[in-house]
Amino acid sequence: MRVILIAGTTKTAAIDGISAAGATSRLLMHTPSADAEIISYGLPIQAPVTPVSPSGCPTPAVITRAIRERIGFDLTVVDAGLARPTGAPTVSVGAHPGRDIREQDPVPTAPEAFIKAREFGQSLPDDRIIIGETIPGGTTTALAVCRALGVDAPISSSLPTNPLGLKQEVAQKALSTADINPGQAAHNPKQAVRTVGDPVLAVAAGVTAGAVESGTDVILGGGTQLLTVAALVRHAGVSDRATLATTSYLDADVTGLNEIATILNLELIITDPGFDACGVDAGPVAEYTNGVAKEGAGMGGALALAAEANRLDEVLPAVQHVLNRIES
Amino acid sequence: MRVILIAGTTKTAAIDGISAAGATSRLLMHTPSADAEIISYGLPIQAPVTPVSPSGCPTPAVITRAIRERIGFDLTVVDAGLARPTGAPTVSVGAHPGRDIREQDPVPTAPEAFIKAREFGQSLPDDRIIIGETIPGGTTTALAVCRALGVDAPISSSLPTNPLGLKQEVAQKALSTADINPGQAAHNPKQAVRTVGDPVLAVAAGVTAGAVESGTDVILGGGTQLLTVAALVRHAGVSDRATLATTSYLDADVTGLNEIATILNLELIITDPGFDACGVDAGPVAEYTNGVAKEGAGMGGALALAAEANRLDEVLPAVQHVLNRIES
Repeated sequence: MRVILIAGTTKTAAIDGISAAGATSRLLMHTPSADAEIISYGLPIQAPVTPVSPSGCPTPAVITRAIRERIGFDLTVVDAGLARPTGAPTVSVGAHPGRDIREQDPVPTAPEAFIKAREFGQSLPDDRIIIGETIPGGTTTALAVCRALGVDAPISSSLPTNPLGLKQEVAQKALSTADINPGQAAHNPKQAVRTVGDPVLAVAAGVTAGAVESGTDVILGGGTQLLTVAALVRHAGVSDRATLATTSYLDADVTGLNEIATILNLELIITDPGFDACGVDAGPVAEYTNGVAKEGAGMGGALALAAEANRLDEVLPAVQHVLNRIES
Repeated sequence: MRVILIAGTTKTAAIDGISAAGATSRLLMHTPSADAEIISYGLPIQAPVTPVSPSGCPTPAVITRAIRERIGFDLTVVDAGLARPTGAPTVSVGAHPGRDIREQDPVPTAPEAFIKAREFGQSLPDDRIIIGETIPGGTTTALAVCRALGVDAPISSSLPTNPLGLKQEVAQKALSTADINPGQAAHNPKQAVRTVGDPVLAVAAGVTAGAVESGTDVILGGGTQLLTVAALVRHAGVSDRATLATTSYLDADVTGLNEIATILNLELIITDPGFDACGVDAGPVAEYTNGVAKEGAGMGGALALAAEANRLDEVLPAVQHVLNRIES
């Protein structure tokens, strides 16, 4: 089993109030680089920070790493527009950081990155892969892409209270700058991602399309963005069944998950990591039970692996082990 | 346990008769990219070829991968000047492909790559690492660097008959172009690598120096080039003990291995993979017993791991399993 983490950035994340994927807006741009290091090495090695939400909730990369330490899986990080250096090894597909989607042509590298990522996905020898993502601001760009495709996907948030009005406003501005009406980019996923999306969506959709069409079982491990990836893949003409594996926190945050999964021909797996287990002190990950973070960095996919192995009860102790290492 | 594969190129490999690390000189430049893919994925995924010697001996990366499949270890590939694309994830330290060392200033990126690689080595969280290399033509550049440092290291070859006269001629020309007398670059490892070396030596020496000085146990898994790395590290003023783990084929090819190990404060581990085991058909890896390849891509280090785990007897079947996958 291989987890493929698609890691990149969009300047859209710098819009005040959009993302909780970092303690401050200055640190947001380091989050994908740090997440990649945490899953690769067990702690940040060159990134200056362990990503936490403003309320101190640790990045979902910690949960994915913890499960990796217990269950074991191969990891490949794909550079989908990292804006800060990382000590994690990455595969290059020619992606660059995305600009704010309220600007003209925010992801000019999207079409070529999609093509190269698709070739990479086709070339993978694995029977089964999990695709995860890390990109602050990614649910807002996902919303804009869904609008452009004419797909009605539920939009979650890393914040306990979803700033959905702000996201809709940003997405609306993006479509209007790009001069695209809702649904006008249907069947043109490269255009949708290039004009109103982000490089992680381009690369994740490319890898997924390539892997699915070459016969690999693909588990999309995540929420809003991975649903958007599935929509992009369907609009690229790849219809084979895939799986969406997400967390109970994401499921609790949105409505219509089952419906959109059915529309996109996705099997749905929802896993509760049990951070609210009675009598156990969950420490800072208790913030997850308060609706912070919810998903990201392959967390839902990794939890599905732990559930499949009947080892979900090991996740919380493993997470605490990783957090102790990071804090020491 | 983490294996760190330092993968790069030098145009020195294109000199006729220098290297057996590829079936033809055109394919030589793909060898490090393919080796990285083989250890990462179990077969080449985007590289056009599985590296074999002109006589059909498969790359030592196959042995390292086979041991990874049985014993298990983390892998990090560092891009030390790859000249062809690779689907393997790599860490960047700013290295570029090296030019022919008979030309002026063949590795201008060496000093900065050494510094960045040293920071990377310092940042590694592992207790123990193995450093391996893949660079066709690397024993010739290693010879030139040893001359420049004034170190008398034994020079092996991937060819059954070592073209030592040719290597000495190339190294002599390199020193004369660089206007360096033998020993004149002592205590100046960055200058030695920049003027007569290759980017893999710069990066491997940097990672080793950084890891050793931050308390990591370092096993140099290889032959001539890893001895040269040890010499560079000593000339950088880092004197802590390290280990050189190599193959019985390398040991059989050179004289004075014990002496140079003592001089460089290296514990020496020599492992015989048992490819000449009676009654077993070793297939194309039998070429190793004829003195082809001998070392490379961390093979000696991986074999030391297998020996430590008392599982050397599994290596040949595991190698055959990998070869069957590659050939199917």
